[in-house]
Amino acid sequence: MTSETSHSAAVFEKRLRDSAAETQAALVAMLNGDALADETVRPSNLLAAMRHGTLNGGKRLRPFLVRETAAMLGGNAAAALRVGVALECLHCYSLIHDDLPAMDDDDLRRGQPTVHKAYDEATAILAGDALLTYAFDIIAAPETDFSDRQKIELVLALSRAAGMGGMVGGQVLDIEAEKTHPNEADIVTLQAMKTGALLRFACEAGAIAAGASAADRQTMRKFGETVGLSFQLADDLLDVTSDAATLGKATGKDAGRGKGTLVALHGTEWAEKRLDALTEEAENLLSPYGEKAAILRQAARFIADRKS
Amino acid sequence: MTSETSHSAAVFEKRLRDSAAETQAALVAMLNGDALADETVRPSNLLAAMRHGTLNGGKRLRPFLVRETAAMLGGNAAAALRVGVALECLHCYSLIHDDLPAMDDDDLRRGQPTVHKAYDEATAILAGDALLTYAFDIIAAPETDFSDRQKIELVLALSRAAGMGGMVGGQVLDIEAEKTHPNEADIVTLQAMKTGALLRFACEAGAIAAGASAADRQTMRKFGETVGLSFQLADDLLDVTSDAATLGKATGKDAGRGKGTLVALHGTEWAEKRLDALTEEAENLLSPYGEKAAILRQAARFIADRKS
Repeated sequence: MTSETSHSAAVFEKRLRDSAAETQAALVAMLNGDALADETVRPSNLLAAMRHGTLNGGKRLRPFLVRETAAMLGGNAAAALRVGVALECLHCYSLIHDDLPAMDDDDLRRGQPTVHKAYDEATAILAGDALLTYAFDIIAAPETDFSDRQKIELVLALSRAAGMGGMVGGQVLDIEAEKTHPNEADIVTLQAMKTGALLRFACEAGAIAAGASAADRQTMRKFGETVGLSFQLADDLLDVTSDAATLGKATGKDAGRGKGTLVALHGTEWAEKRLDALTEEAENLLSPYGEKAAILRQAARFIADRKS
Repeated sequence: MTSETSHSAAVFEKRLRDSAAETQAALVAMLNGDALADETVRPSNLLAAMRHGTLNGGKRLRPFLVRETAAMLGGNAAAALRVGVALECLHCYSLIHDDLPAMDDDDLRRGQPTVHKAYDEATAILAGDALLTYAFDIIAAPETDFSDRQKIELVLALSRAAGMGGMVGGQVLDIEAEKTHPNEADIVTLQAMKTGALLRFACEAGAIAAGASAADRQTMRKFGETVGLSFQLADDLLDVTSDAATLGKATGKDAGRGKGTLVALHGTEWAEKRLDALTEEAENLLSPYGEKAAILRQAARFIADRKS
């Protein structure tokens, strides 16, 4: 690594950390009972469980992608932040429900007790439900400074990315895959739905937030899809090569469950080459945007190369 | 009962049944995998569980209230039907999650196995998540013939009615109430959130669907709140006075759990008087609309007097 790329990587990582801190601050403010003032009651225990499930660190990659895509295309940063927070609420709901005993039955998430361990199962189910619902509230709220058209496009794209044809559908396929031993095409489909759909939405949402042309929106959707594939492949690779201390969660789980991944099918060397190819594909999609796309280019590389 | 009111009740009940059949047909069409054509996959098992949780009869009271409020105020019936279907999907998600072992642990719903009994817990959690998400999809979809402003108002009102300050928050308070023995005011608040919020939304949504004035919208919101109180009080009364065969679900559960209800606090005679007072209040709210409000007037009476 030359000192120039090392400098550039340090700048990128600071930018990612700053964005995560901004998302965290917005989540803290928005999940504070006092800030939610109107005539109704919000049970403090529910809010505490929602905070437990959302404020526990994380890279906040999805809000970062919303933010940087919007920035590249000239969007309103404050409104993009609110969309990023909505997306993070939705992502965290999915983690809370995935961790439940009836699903992955995980006790730890980022080194901390999962919501159903820290509270109880009923509270975890309801905290997830509330976060999913709140995501749509945040987008539609008057405080989110977009046109009605932009908001409706965001609601529609988010509900499709998150629903039966997206993340939730992918989770069902993933559970079924433990029994059915899917082929390569099935694995790609389920991963594109389970984890890819929200990353694709993040980039598409940045384009909607910027009021981008249909062509730019399509390009950014494709970019999100591509980094989504990278993200999952890197995840599967880390499950094989990393250890629990580095990752903050159990590793080797996929193999333990006989779960089909592309790494299990083709090996780690193939996976590393495939990650390079995906990163190149993502970079090619960004070429029309020149220097403005520098951060997203680094993001694509970061997602493929990440070590945790 | 005079033969005139008996005739009128028969007409009302036919109208309610016809509306339920219309909602059912729309749900069948919309939860059919073939109708959901685009590039993604929707797992057939997930769709089957969603159908199991939504197509099992019911009076479809919430879509009926959307429809009749919209009709009274001159709204587009086809678009109001879509909002009613969205609301019914959301209502059914809440039933699926409420029935889970970690929540009410119910094996039967309307005489049929609950979703987690017919499928499994993971599928029930995910079917609920998918139905909640789909509710927002339906509202925002191009097929729903409203202005963007109307759609955003519907998304915002629905997310608030369903979320931490509405239905989900009420469910948390309800679970806590089994331990904390809430006073009368607490019971009223939790019921207004747990069951009242969606009925209030149904009537408010009808007003939004009709592009009604702020004053009409406020009146219909209040009407919905009032019939919501009636609905819950009638439910608590039925839990004491009815039997499982008539109701299609277990009865006497509230007392068995030491759960505070207004009926437990004040007795059945008080509850019947209170139901009359609430119906009168609801009718007074409708008086500005004269004959146009005939159906909603009967709906208020029906909700208070229902025997199942």
